[in-house]
Amino acid sequence: MILYDEQLIERSQAHIDIEDRAYQFGDGIYEVIRVYHGRPFYMNEHLKRLERSAREIRLQIPYSLEKLNALLVELIQQTGLTEGNIYLQISRGTAPRNHAFPKEARPLVIAYPQPSQRPIQELQQGVSTITTKDIRWLRCDIKSLNLLGAALAKQEAVEQGCKEAIFIRDGWVTEGSSTNIFFVREGKIWTHPANHLILHGITRQIALSLAEKLQIPVQLEAIREEKIFEADECFMTSTTMEICPIVRINGQWIGNGKPGPITRQLQQEFEKLIEQF
Amino acid sequence: MILYDEQLIERSQAHIDIEDRAYQFGDGIYEVIRVYHGRPFYMNEHLKRLERSAREIRLQIPYSLEKLNALLVELIQQTGLTEGNIYLQISRGTAPRNHAFPKEARPLVIAYPQPSQRPIQELQQGVSTITTKDIRWLRCDIKSLNLLGAALAKQEAVEQGCKEAIFIRDGWVTEGSSTNIFFVREGKIWTHPANHLILHGITRQIALSLAEKLQIPVQLEAIREEKIFEADECFMTSTTMEICPIVRINGQWIGNGKPGPITRQLQQEFEKLIEQF
Repeated sequence: MILYDEQLIERSQAHIDIEDRAYQFGDGIYEVIRVYHGRPFYMNEHLKRLERSAREIRLQIPYSLEKLNALLVELIQQTGLTEGNIYLQISRGTAPRNHAFPKEARPLVIAYPQPSQRPIQELQQGVSTITTKDIRWLRCDIKSLNLLGAALAKQEAVEQGCKEAIFIRDGWVTEGSSTNIFFVREGKIWTHPANHLILHGITRQIALSLAEKLQIPVQLEAIREEKIFEADECFMTSTTMEICPIVRINGQWIGNGKPGPITRQLQQEFEKLIEQF
Repeated sequence: MILYDEQLIERSQAHIDIEDRAYQFGDGIYEVIRVYHGRPFYMNEHLKRLERSAREIRLQIPYSLEKLNALLVELIQQTGLTEGNIYLQISRGTAPRNHAFPKEARPLVIAYPQPSQRPIQELQQGVSTITTKDIRWLRCDIKSLNLLGAALAKQEAVEQGCKEAIFIRDGWVTEGSSTNIFFVREGKIWTHPANHLILHGITRQIALSLAEKLQIPVQLEAIREEKIFEADECFMTSTTMEICPIVRINGQWIGNGKPGPITRQLQQEFEKLIEQF
């Protein structure tokens, strides 16, 4: 069962037209919302970001966020999703193919459950990553469906036995292909500022607020590619990967090759958020 | 009637899954092939470029180009398309959502006819355009479905009563949102070289070969934004717009505000190609 426009229907009944603009132009936006214990985590923040993405590409969400929220909760209940994600996307709708926006099309909301367990092993042991050139467009702050650059980078990582690809643009670390990237050096956390070159991750924001709570200083500044291995710790954040240690980049260990103490503190605080939730 | 995988079926029967990678990632490639007098124009060149795009994103076209060619010809015949385009796209196929490539998915070919007349008025009188910032990714040579940047630019042009948006990257003219851009100055044609920043248009190549035939010198070099109004003529090329004069940019006339003589010569030669075809 999926959400299609404003109804819950069987997936096989969902009609996606070949001239849906998401299909032909990637003209749409999306969110991935984590579900713990059958309840959506930070749902409001995801819906607020969805609203921002919509505004930035001037897509009109076809009904209110309150109604969308209620429909997603109903989807979770009806499908019995307890652990996993809700994938949600909105395309600009179906219209005869033309780059310019259609005048009449109704944007199409779809959402469906993706049952999955938390990535416990990765969270405990940390993951290996590669770096790759960031060739994506200059509005990475919009969570749009134009994800080919991210997909190609992720594939490159997977083929090298790694979990994530870290983008480098003009010599600066921006973010991961589907995560935000953080470094720790001499007790301070460094991460790229939330501008047009990175997605403003919800889990990124949670991690930053946990750092504040723990009184760990944060520098919202990109780091140079050549400084990566001067870091004591590295971690990535995302809705599905939570706060996950990165222990290796391009085959080289970070710090002593084990998840670092500041990463661990943040992870513990994040665990509390989930438990208390 | 449309081409779906390797069969001609009714459009309403075509099943596009919500996890088709074109729908979620824009993970696919496309071509638009012009049909004159019921026959596809430069079909081989389009299919060769499709093959190149596929290779660049490592997408396996599910059957031979010969077979695809035959199916497209059959589509044209069965739908009785005499004047218009065939829109053709191939997605990487349907698989559970994950940025990395699926192991098992079969790429999905779809194609359908778009009846349309030649843009006679624009070809005769020329069109107005705007310039806009080129924020697209750095592999514009791949004809991929990640077209949100192009769509936003085109929309900007349309809202200003213009036909096309000309992209400027770092102060250099790259191309139009769905066309290639040429300038003429002192009898010489200037256009951006065919590198990763522009699509290598089929009509661009035809225009360049016609220029060679006419012994008009060509400079494959980008021009600076601030030099635009030093041009005597400007034109754009694309499969649907053919060789079309640009007479105005950002409200300012180019040359004397009328299609220029070199543009006209190229247009006449292009007409001959269509007539002889």
